[in-house]
Amino acid sequence: MASANIIPLIMAGGSGTRLWPLSRDTMPKQFIGLLDEGLSTFQATLLRVKDVSFDKPIIVTNHEFRFVVAEQMQAVGVEGDIVLEPERRDSAAAIAVGALLASSRAADAICVALAADHIVADVDGFRADCAKAATLAASGLIMTFGIMPTKPATGYGYLEPGVALDVAGASRLTRFVEKPDAKTAQLYVDQGFLWNSGNFVFAAAGMIEELDLYAPEVIAGARAALAEAKRDLDFLRLDAAGFARAIKVSIDYAVMEKTKHAGVLAASFDWSDVGAWDSIYEVKPKDGDGNVLEGPVVALDTRGTLVRSEDILTTVIGLDDAVVVTTRDAVLVTTKAQAANVKALVEQMKSDGRREASEHLRIYRPWGWYQRIDLGARFQVKRINVKPGGLLSLQKHFHRAEHWVVVSGTAEVTLDGAVSYIHENESIYLPIGCTHRLANPGKIALELIEVQVGSYTGEDDIVRIEDVYART
Amino acid sequence: MASANIIPLIMAGGSGTRLWPLSRDTMPKQFIGLLDEGLSTFQATLLRVKDVSFDKPIIVTNHEFRFVVAEQMQAVGVEGDIVLEPERRDSAAAIAVGALLASSRAADAICVALAADHIVADVDGFRADCAKAATLAASGLIMTFGIMPTKPATGYGYLEPGVALDVAGASRLTRFVEKPDAKTAQLYVDQGFLWNSGNFVFAAAGMIEELDLYAPEVIAGARAALAEAKRDLDFLRLDAAGFARAIKVSIDYAVMEKTKHAGVLAASFDWSDVGAWDSIYEVKPKDGDGNVLEGPVVALDTRGTLVRSEDILTTVIGLDDAVVVTTRDAVLVTTKAQAANVKALVEQMKSDGRREASEHLRIYRPWGWYQRIDLGARFQVKRINVKPGGLLSLQKHFHRAEHWVVVSGTAEVTLDGAVSYIHENESIYLPIGCTHRLANPGKIALELIEVQVGSYTGEDDIVRIEDVYART
Repeated sequence: MASANIIPLIMAGGSGTRLWPLSRDTMPKQFIGLLDEGLSTFQATLLRVKDVSFDKPIIVTNHEFRFVVAEQMQAVGVEGDIVLEPERRDSAAAIAVGALLASSRAADAICVALAADHIVADVDGFRADCAKAATLAASGLIMTFGIMPTKPATGYGYLEPGVALDVAGASRLTRFVEKPDAKTAQLYVDQGFLWNSGNFVFAAAGMIEELDLYAPEVIAGARAALAEAKRDLDFLRLDAAGFARAIKVSIDYAVMEKTKHAGVLAASFDWSDVGAWDSIYEVKPKDGDGNVLEGPVVALDTRGTLVRSEDILTTVIGLDDAVVVTTRDAVLVTTKAQAANVKALVEQMKSDGRREASEHLRIYRPWGWYQRIDLGARFQVKRINVKPGGLLSLQKHFHRAEHWVVVSGTAEVTLDGAVSYIHENESIYLPIGCTHRLANPGKIALELIEVQVGSYTGEDDIVRIEDVYART
Repeated sequence: MASANIIPLIMAGGSGTRLWPLSRDTMPKQFIGLLDEGLSTFQATLLRVKDVSFDKPIIVTNHEFRFVVAEQMQAVGVEGDIVLEPERRDSAAAIAVGALLASSRAADAICVALAADHIVADVDGFRADCAKAATLAASGLIMTFGIMPTKPATGYGYLEPGVALDVAGASRLTRFVEKPDAKTAQLYVDQGFLWNSGNFVFAAAGMIEELDLYAPEVIAGARAALAEAKRDLDFLRLDAAGFARAIKVSIDYAVMEKTKHAGVLAASFDWSDVGAWDSIYEVKPKDGDGNVLEGPVVALDTRGTLVRSEDILTTVIGLDDAVVVTTRDAVLVTTKAQAANVKALVEQMKSDGRREASEHLRIYRPWGWYQRIDLGARFQVKRINVKPGGLLSLQKHFHRAEHWVVVSGTAEVTLDGAVSYIHENESIYLPIGCTHRLANPGKIALELIEVQVGSYTGEDDIVRIEDVYART
C-alpha cells in the first residue's frame, strides 16, 4: 500500500428522489443498475479507481445501505473500508471522516472525493486528471474538477477560474457560485465559468486544517464519531452521539467558499451527475428516432423519448421528448423538460403516505431478497431468494401461518428446534406462533414461495429471537 | 311475452382493439367494467332494454364469450337467448340470425338491433325513441338512429335525411355515406347530415325480405346455421358449416345502402360508441383541471388528460391531453389525438407475437378465473378463484407437480380417485402425472395459491379427462 497513491473517498450515502420510481429511499440511484450490464454508478465509480495509481477506497455510506454496498463491491472485485454514518449529515461531515481516516493511513495522503452517483465514460481521462490534480494538491491546493458547460444549466453551481497554474487546464479558483437563474447562467457560460462537479482532490492534512479553521464543529464531530466508532462485521460504524455534533452542511459551503487554497482543474473527461431522467436520456445511446428504449417497450411515431420498463410491457404512441418509466409497482410519465419535478411528486406521495414513494417492491436483506407477488384480505404471497450461506433470523409471528414451497435449491428449516431439509418441489408448514428459521446451506440460490395466511400479514408481525446480522 | 313488444337484438361478438390494454381479444371492450360501479357497456345495454316495453333480448355473441355473457347477464338480473357464432361474420349475419329468431317468436316482431359497446346515459330518451321508431318500423321502414354531430368527425359514417315523416325527428333516409375525410365531414355537418350510430329498429319480417333481396347468401347462411343449431348448456350454438356460408359483410353495406325502405330518426338521447380512449375521456366526469383520473393515480401540473390504472401506482407530471392506461401487465401512453392509432399498435404487437396484445393476465373460465402471479425458470405461481359450485375438469399434467394452498373457502380435491376437503390455511400436493380435480362445494368463493414446479409449466400441458363445461 504505497502512501504516494491517491486514496478515493467515495460518498455513497445520498438518496436521489428525482430518479423515482427506480431510485427510492430504500435503494437509491447510486445502487440501481442504470448502466450497461446492470452496473450501478457506485460500481462504475469503484472501477474507475481500481488502478495502480489509487489506494484502497474509503466508502462513506448510510448504515441502511451497508449490505448493498458490500455486495456491490464484492460483485466488481473491489475491496475497501466501509464507514457507516448513523444519519445523513451532508458532504462536509463525510469528507471530514474520510480525510481523518486517510491521514491515519499516511500523514501525507492525497484524497480524491467522489460522488457515487456520477457517470464518467472516459476512465483514462479521469485518471490522468486525478494525477494532475494530485500534484497540485500535494503543493497545498484543494482542487475541484470543473466541467466545461454544454448549455447555461441552472441545475449546477459554477466555478470562476482565476490565475492560471503551471499545470495545463488548472487555475486558482476565484469563487464558487450557487445555482443561478437562467439569465445569470448564460452570463457565467459567456464568461468562461465551469460547472462545479462536486468532486475534489486534496491533501488529507490540508483539508483537516481548513475544516479546523472554517468548520470546527464538523471536524470535531467527525473526530468524536471515529474515536468511539465500532467494528460491526466488516463495517466501521461511526458513533452516533459524536457524529450528531457534525452539523449538516455541504463541503462547498463549509470549506470551498471560504478557503484561500482552492484551485480548479478543467476536466478533460465527460461527466454527468445523473440528476434526473433527462440526464439519463442524455448519457444513453439513442436509436434512429432519438429514442432510448430499454426493456419490454414498443414505441410508435415517437421521438426524443426515454422509455424504460423493468418487466411490464410499456407502449407509447405519438410522443415527443417524453419520459416513461415503469417498474413492477409504479409508473412515471412526464417530459424531459419536467423531469426535475419528480422530486416534488415524490414529496407529495410521501406526505400522502404512499409506500411506493420510498420503498421498492423487492426488499434487499443481508441474506438475499424478498418480493410480494400477491396480496389478499387474509393472505400474502412472497417470493424469497436466499443467497448460498444466507441465514434469516430465528423468528416467530403472532398472526400468520406460513406455507413454504421450495422451487429452486435446498432450504434448511429449523422449526421449534428441529432441523429439516426441504428440497425443490417440497413444502413445509409453519403454524402460527412456531419458532422458525430459514437458511441456505447449499451452493446455489434458494428460491421459495411463501404463502402467508392469517388475520394480519404486515411486516411488523415478527419477533426476531436471534440474528447473525445483528438486527434483533 | 307480448309480441307487441320490441325484441332487442344485442350484438356482442366484436373485439375492439383500440381500447387496449383494457380491451383484448379474450375479453373485449363490451365486457370490461368501463362504467360506474364496474358495469360493462354490455350490461348497461341489457339494463337499457330491461323494461316493460321490451321483450326478452336475443344476444348474438362469439362462442368464446359465452361464459362471460351468461355471467354478466346473471349479475344484472336479465334473462335472454344467447346465440353463439362459431366465427366472426360481421353485422349482417348477426342481424339475419336475430331477425329469424325474432320472427319465430312472433311473425310481426319488431326488433331493435343494438351494439353492446355503445354508451347511452339518457335511458328514458332512448326508450321513447325506440317506441317512436317502432311505429315507423311497423309500417315497413328500417329505421336507423341518427346522432346530431358535435364535430366534423371522420370516424363515423353519415346519414343524409330526406323527406320528413309524420313522427317528430324522423325522415326518409336519402343515403348512407362511408367515413369521410375532414373536409367532406365539415360539408356533411353543414348540410345537416347525422352520424350513423349503427343501431336500428325494424320489423323482423321486413329485414328478412330485404336480406333475401340484397344479401341472399347471408340470409341463407343464417337459415342453415339455425336449422342445424345445437343446444349447449344454456346456449344456442349455430352450425359452423351453415354459418360459414353467410359472407362477412356489414348490415350497412348488405342492406341499408340498397334498401328502398330506409328511414332515420334523429336520436334525442346522448350517444358514444366508445371507439377509442378519447371517447372514454369525453363521456367521463372531469376534475377541475379537466382530467379523468381513475384508480391509484397521482397527477401534477396536468390538464385534459385521462389516467386510468387497474392497481399499479401511475403518476404523470406536466402532460396535456394525454392518455395513460395501466393494467397489471401492460402500459399505454399516448395522446387523445393519437388514440385511434392504438389499433395499429396492437396489430404490430400481435405480429410480434406478444401475448399481452390479445390476452389478459386474468383468464376467465366457466368455473371462475386464474391469474399468473409469478413465473420463474422451473416454476409458476397462480392465484385461482373458483365460484361456489364451480368444478374444474378432471385432469393431469406430464411435466409439473402442483402445490395448492387454500387461502379462502374450502376446496374439494379429487386426487387419483380419493376425495378430500382442504380448508383455509391447509395445503395439498399433487405429484406429476396424478389425476386430479378441483371443485368448490361451498357457499363462498374458493381462493387458492397454486405453485407449479417442473421442467415445463405451459398451459398446454394438460390432459382433460372429463369436463362439465364440455371442453374435453
